Amino acid sequence: MDNKTGTPVTVIGLGLMGQALAGAFLRAGHLTTVWNRTASKADQLVADGARLAPTVGAALKAGSVAVICVTDYHAVRELLGASELDGTTLVNLTSGDSAQAREAARWAEERGARYVDGAIMAVPPAVGTAEATILHSGPEADFEAHRSTLDALGTVTYLGADHGLASLYDVAGLAMMWSVLNAWLQGTALLRTAGVDAAAYAPFARQIAAGVAEWLPGYAEQIDSGSFPAEVSALETDVRAMAHLIEESEAVGVNAELPRLIKAIADRSVAAGHGGEQYPVLIEEFGTPHGN
Amino acid sequence: MDNKTGTPVTVIGLGLMGQALAGAFLRAGHLTTVWNRTASKADQLVADGARLAPTVGAALKAGSVAVICVTDYHAVRELLGASELDGTTLVNLTSGDSAQAREAARWAEERGARYVDGAIMAVPPAVGTAEATILHSGPEADFEAHRSTLDALGTVTYLGADHGLASLYDVAGLAMMWSVLNAWLQGTALLRTAGVDAAAYAPFARQIAAGVAEWLPGYAEQIDSGSFPAEVSALETDVRAMAHLIEESEAVGVNAELPRLIKAIADRSVAAGHGGEQYPVLIEEFGTPHGN
Ligand SMILES: NC(=O)c1ccc[n+]([C@@H]2O[C@H](COP(=O)([O-])OP(=O)(O)OC[C@H]3O[C@@H](n4cnc5c(N)ncnc54)[C@H](OP(=O)(O)O)[C@@H]3O)[C@@H](O)[C@H]2O)c1
Ligand SMILES: NC(=O)c1ccc[n+]([C@@H]2O[C@H](COP(=O)([O-])OP(=O)(O)OC[C@H]3O[C@@H](n4cnc5c(N)ncnc54)[C@H](OP(=O)(O)O)[C@@H]3O)[C@@H](O)[C@H]2O)c1
Repeated sequence: MDNKTGTPVTVIGLGLMGQALAGAFLRAGHLTTVWNRTASKADQLVADGARLAPTVGAALKAGSVAVICVTDYHAVRELLGASELDGTTLVNLTSGDSAQAREAARWAEERGARYVDGAIMAVPPAVGTAEATILHSGPEADFEAHRSTLDALGTVTYLGADHGLASLYDVAGLAMMWSVLNAWLQGTALLRTAGVDAAAYAPFARQIAAGVAEWLPGYAEQIDSGSFPAEVSALETDVRAMAHLIEESEAVGVNAELPRLIKAIADRSVAAGHGGEQYPVLIEEFGTPHGN
Repeated sequence: MDNKTGTPVTVIGLGLMGQALAGAFLRAGHLTTVWNRTASKADQLVADGARLAPTVGAALKAGSVAVICVTDYHAVRELLGASELDGTTLVNLTSGDSAQAREAARWAEERGARYVDGAIMAVPPAVGTAEATILHSGPEADFEAHRSTLDALGTVTYLGADHGLASLYDVAGLAMMWSVLNAWLQGTALLRTAGVDAAAYAPFARQIAAGVAEWLPGYAEQIDSGSFPAEVSALETDVRAMAHLIEESEAVGVNAELPRLIKAIADRSVAAGHGGEQYPVLIEEFGTPHGN
């Protein structure tokens, strides 16, 4: 029995994430066809109104757009390799790097498919809510043709025509996430040595992180212009305070690895003659391999 | 000629920061007495209405509260060592670590002074505006007695009775600042390899940083309870994505030091058996010296 209306959509791969994606399409009222190597993972979705396709090829034909979410790009290729792709639109939400995304786009386009790459910045339970950010990149028309369908998955964003952008933004965003969390943990560890509990410190950390976030668009202008006048503060002033952070961390007996890395990167920039310039001059350090 | 009214206040140390502090008191209408080892640094302030005291002792007597801001705690001790401190209230805004602050408090209190420690989270031009956060710690009554005067310096915050808190919050806040900036630079470097300019990427970084900042109070509850159930995501899932961040950084030829440190810390926690718990379990790594 199928009482689903809306756009026909296909979900290939029903791991934790694929099941969440298919569930979100079903809840949004889309006619949802699914396929998974291990067919039993479709049982709950079928009970909820999804159709289980007998083959990948049949699944691809059923939807006007096919979302793929499996372990990695290797699995994507293995899975799609034997199927007719001509005329399909693939939205690949499998995690990978920018080179894999560009290569998968070439591969799929050679076979006559339209190909949009994507990355999911969310855990499965958040999929289908505004909290789930889903990044997309590839030909804009191919994305726009299915945007209203993809909207069922969360806050859906289009980044540009280069298929590599979704995974680049994804890892960049994750780097920000872990960095905010790590800095907060560093501060929490420092404050706990003075008997301050994590709940008492957290609002301060939140305020600093949110405040510094506001500087980024302004600092970006320095990077794009390639000129870093010390309008607010010079890097060498930061470096002196970085030494305080290391000393304090070591003195109270917490981990000082993050403080030491912060200073090591800035030290190299000062050694290269940038001590009188402003913090964003460090883009030169971040843009260059080091010990890779 | 002196036409200043308001509370009599003293500023000792007229480097870049001390001059900004004295200037803010003057603008707020306080009767401001200043002293500096190199007296000529008072010239502009005197022209603006400050009084230059002939000795440190005379400066201390002139104000109901004396703000001190010199290079380091060593200079503070050298400067105040020969003076009568009995009955004075010292607010020491010199940068230092928590142990130095606690030691300076003992030293000053033994000499009959009331002592509040502080830290300035601002550059000199911001002093006197709401953008300048000035942290204070020490006996609450001693801070509160002068809060309305100190308000002239910026957004004035009281953290608690332990004199070490101001410097701990200061370095913790700086760690957050540099971490947000570094993660943004890492992301900017990654995106530039795809021709995305810094201005185009910055709003995304800002949104992630501000969004993650909102999680901190909730995550703090896990730390205070010492229990880290993977309600949203397990650490081992983060670690797999950290590997992607490293691979992507290396593949596009940007610096991968920050990604590698992020993963190295998480790897140790997974090795210690915490892979199934949630990110804040890393407090155990951050709270423990490593390679110190
Ligand atoms: N879970 C998250 O929190 C999360 C968050 C963001 C992004 N992601 C990304 O989403 C993708 C899927 O993650 P997940 O959590 O759903 O993983 P998962 O639960 O381990 O599921 C993996 C899926 O890939 C399929 N698969 C693997 N190798 C295959 C092959 N050679 N041929 C056909 N199918 C194959 C599996 O099929 P079988 O069922 O037959 O094994 C299963 O459907 C990953 O790229 C992951 O990085 C996940
Ligand atoms: N500038 C900033 O952006 C900033 C931001 C936050 C916090 N701070 C902190 O504020 C404090 C002062 O910084 P600043 O920028 O004003 O430094 P600065 O311009 O170098 O001035 C240093 C001050 O300390 C005095 N001094 C140093 N050693 C002394 C001694 N042995 N006896 C007497 N006086 C001595 C100097 O006197 P002379 O004039 O006679 O040399 C001068 O007044 C530092 O702890 C700094 O970390 C500064």
